[in-house]
Amino acid sequence: MGRVLGAGFVKKGHAVKLGTRDPGAEKVKRWAVSVGSGASLGTFSEAADFGELVVLATLWSGTESALGLANPKNLEGKIVVDATNPLDFSVHPPRLSLGHTTSAGEKVQALLPGAKVVKAFNAVGNPHMVDPTFPGGRPTMFIGGNDAGAKKTVLELLGDFGWEGVDLGGIETARYLEPLAMIWILHYLRTKSGAHAFKLLKK
Amino acid sequence: MGRVLGAGFVKKGHAVKLGTRDPGAEKVKRWAVSVGSGASLGTFSEAADFGELVVLATLWSGTESALGLANPKNLEGKIVVDATNPLDFSVHPPRLSLGHTTSAGEKVQALLPGAKVVKAFNAVGNPHMVDPTFPGGRPTMFIGGNDAGAKKTVLELLGDFGWEGVDLGGIETARYLEPLAMIWILHYLRTKSGAHAFKLLKK
Repeated sequence: MGRVLGAGFVKKGHAVKLGTRDPGAEKVKRWAVSVGSGASLGTFSEAADFGELVVLATLWSGTESALGLANPKNLEGKIVVDATNPLDFSVHPPRLSLGHTTSAGEKVQALLPGAKVVKAFNAVGNPHMVDPTFPGGRPTMFIGGNDAGAKKTVLELLGDFGWEGVDLGGIETARYLEPLAMIWILHYLRTKSGAHAFKLLKK
Repeated sequence: MGRVLGAGFVKKGHAVKLGTRDPGAEKVKRWAVSVGSGASLGTFSEAADFGELVVLATLWSGTESALGLANPKNLEGKIVVDATNPLDFSVHPPRLSLGHTTSAGEKVQALLPGAKVVKAFNAVGNPHMVDPTFPGGRPTMFIGGNDAGAKKTVLELLGDFGWEGVDLGGIETARYLEPLAMIWILHYLRTKSGAHAFKLLKK
């Protein structure tokens, strides 16, 4: 997910440093070569320091560790797009490891008290994150976060990425946005096809 | 919601008995007159006994009491469409009073062990439940339940009602479908407009 979104940000004219536990690994080196100028690699700390806006795209089980390596001080005052889902893969189908009274979005905000966390990009599969093409038009990405300015920026980015962004409220709305990811995932597992996305129809 | 869906079932050619705590109340008598032949009124028990398929459209706080009055024996072997959401209105915006490890759908199935409970019609406002008209085509209603035959019937009904029904899995998927209702509700509260519905885009 990080590689897909990273390539998307480069495509949209931004410079991207992909943070990784192992900047020498072949798969991330191949990513940097394929994306070309605008893309670079670094440690989590280097990437967190580099970004004006930072995307968190980690497996849930590695999220707290990754944020520790990134160093929360590097993220102070910055927008952090939280694309994680708190999935428990020890069962099949996977389930959410937390919810209802809390959420991954709220946990991330608590781990990064100085950052402006915005839940986004969590309820769709990788192939559709950048410039999705569906009959029926732009899909909808719901977002939530506590900072109005940060959400305005993320809504603009979503527009650049071919989405209609819809702001649902504070970061606690991740309690609803993470279950939405489960609907996407369950439909994927039932149909063996990830060629779907949500749209909010309006009139 | 019960009056809207009841009128919808009559419109689609079914006979409907609307169960109510007070069959003599003006608002339900007006409903029966306006819907015309095919519509009748009764107690919860009479309605549960009458229906081949029964729709549960109660405030969550009154659901357990309503099912007791309906008498679970009247619902044995029958399809029960659970359109409830476990909303807690003591706070604003409302929130779900339960979730993550359980759901209203699962509670209803536990209260009606002999019935075939199908979660449906819970993630849209009343004005769009029957023959919704949105630019962009039919909206999607996700459903969940443990009985395959019951879900087949509900998917057919959803088609008759102008929806695309999508089966997500067992009744425990209500843990995701009830948060989806919260997304509908929060967007309604933020925009002061209920003219929206979800669609699953596919290709």
